[in-house]
Amino acid sequence: MKFTKMHGLGNDFVIIAGETRLPVEAGKLARNICDRHTGIGADGLVYILPSAIADFRMRILNADGSEAEQCGNAVRCVALYYYERISGARQALTVETQAGVQRVWLEGDGMDRLVRVDMGRPVLASKDIPAAVEGETVVDRTLQVNNRGEERAYTFTAVSMGNPHAVIEVEDARGYPLEQWGPLVETHPYFPNKTNVEFITIRSRDEMDMRVWERGVGQTMACGTGACAALVASVLRGRADRRALVHLKGGDLLIEWNEEDGRVYMTGPAVTVFEGEWNR
Amino acid sequence: MKFTKMHGLGNDFVIIAGETRLPVEAGKLARNICDRHTGIGADGLVYILPSAIADFRMRILNADGSEAEQCGNAVRCVALYYYERISGARQALTVETQAGVQRVWLEGDGMDRLVRVDMGRPVLASKDIPAAVEGETVVDRTLQVNNRGEERAYTFTAVSMGNPHAVIEVEDARGYPLEQWGPLVETHPYFPNKTNVEFITIRSRDEMDMRVWERGVGQTMACGTGACAALVASVLRGRADRRALVHLKGGDLLIEWNEEDGRVYMTGPAVTVFEGEWNR
Repeated sequence: MKFTKMHGLGNDFVIIAGETRLPVEAGKLARNICDRHTGIGADGLVYILPSAIADFRMRILNADGSEAEQCGNAVRCVALYYYERISGARQALTVETQAGVQRVWLEGDGMDRLVRVDMGRPVLASKDIPAAVEGETVVDRTLQVNNRGEERAYTFTAVSMGNPHAVIEVEDARGYPLEQWGPLVETHPYFPNKTNVEFITIRSRDEMDMRVWERGVGQTMACGTGACAALVASVLRGRADRRALVHLKGGDLLIEWNEEDGRVYMTGPAVTVFEGEWNR
Repeated sequence: MKFTKMHGLGNDFVIIAGETRLPVEAGKLARNICDRHTGIGADGLVYILPSAIADFRMRILNADGSEAEQCGNAVRCVALYYYERISGARQALTVETQAGVQRVWLEGDGMDRLVRVDMGRPVLASKDIPAAVEGETVVDRTLQVNNRGEERAYTFTAVSMGNPHAVIEVEDARGYPLEQWGPLVETHPYFPNKTNVEFITIRSRDEMDMRVWERGVGQTMACGTGACAALVASVLRGRADRRALVHLKGGDLLIEWNEEDGRVYMTGPAVTVFEGEWNR
């Protein structure tokens, strides 16, 4: 079975194209393939499949065998794959995901090629995020956490990009002890479905640093929906313009919250690492 | 650049053959290739090179770019590679390593093929291990460690297989909290060069469980020299026969301390995971 290994800001995937559907026992195959010592090693196994309603369909199996609805880093990778190897006729593509049809655009060229993704409209209503706090939206609210006796009060803004995010501005996001405080915010009673947590430092109106604590995962190199949430929260708080560069651990994402259509657009890289053949 | 990904008990390597020498900036290449998110992902990058004194030469670059003198798991992989792809004429091979010429034998066949490796003679003299304790050898000595106020006294036996090992018998090696106690033994003042630490549980005279805390690395799936040291220590202590199966986290190794030549022989598996091409 031929495959291609790709990554988007260090979030890495084994890409398989040419099949018409997921294999039987796809979850088990994903666990075997994603194992970093005895398999190929990846965060996820991604299939590019035919679609009746879009240019192609993407299905993502996580390393634990479960299926992900969507992933901003993966969609950039499959879009580049499709454009470079299957059909380079158009630079505007549509991708069917478990969360709906997503629009993507190929930008730049050669080694500097980037992929722009329509990430949809942010959800700001507290009951839909969901966040169990009073009021319509969740901007500049306060929560308290206690880490082994040390109390800390955070001012946070909550936004959903299909998944919940709590964005917190700190002095030094790059050096922030995420491991200590991330899990306490993630599981705070304000968030009935738990939450992803973004610690950000505003550098200027169009540039910020961000470190992310992903719900159920921990610290990761990059989180596309998290970067979108960070920009939206910063616009709501009057701290940033509608278009800003977000510096993540794995690299940069350009995020734009378009004023006309209300949608968030994420632009970032996708990299092909190697080609392989798996015969097990 | 074509490569093959292999593993021995979960200790995984990118194998490259067909070159005549290491590339320039081999350390940098190893770091890039071994990166588990943006590279191929491996514990080490291994070159199979020509040798004037053995069937072939093996050079191992660790994931941090440094060069390893030897590695029992890697030598099984390259022996299988050489036998299956370069020359299957003989089942007895010699491999030049930075630590000298090593003898290996291919055993069994098909999926059950195993590789037997001459791991050399154990070093028992305390000054050569080195262990800063009184007396000629280091059998059933005691050391004290303190983990945040909790004192523990261990009875240990020290052996070198080219690298130092402290072997400690415990009631349940498989469930042992290595992370807490391993580092304290590793850095105990008795070991001027630090030490690898093996926690073992004797099941019978020819079977034991082992968990390893590798010097400078932490817990790993398997350590060939550690399994050899565990068997040698157990023979010295009268707890095991000269041939025993060692159950490691990553799988099993059969270890024999030959009475006639005084050498230790390790027999275990090597697995080809996939073929790839890297073009970066």
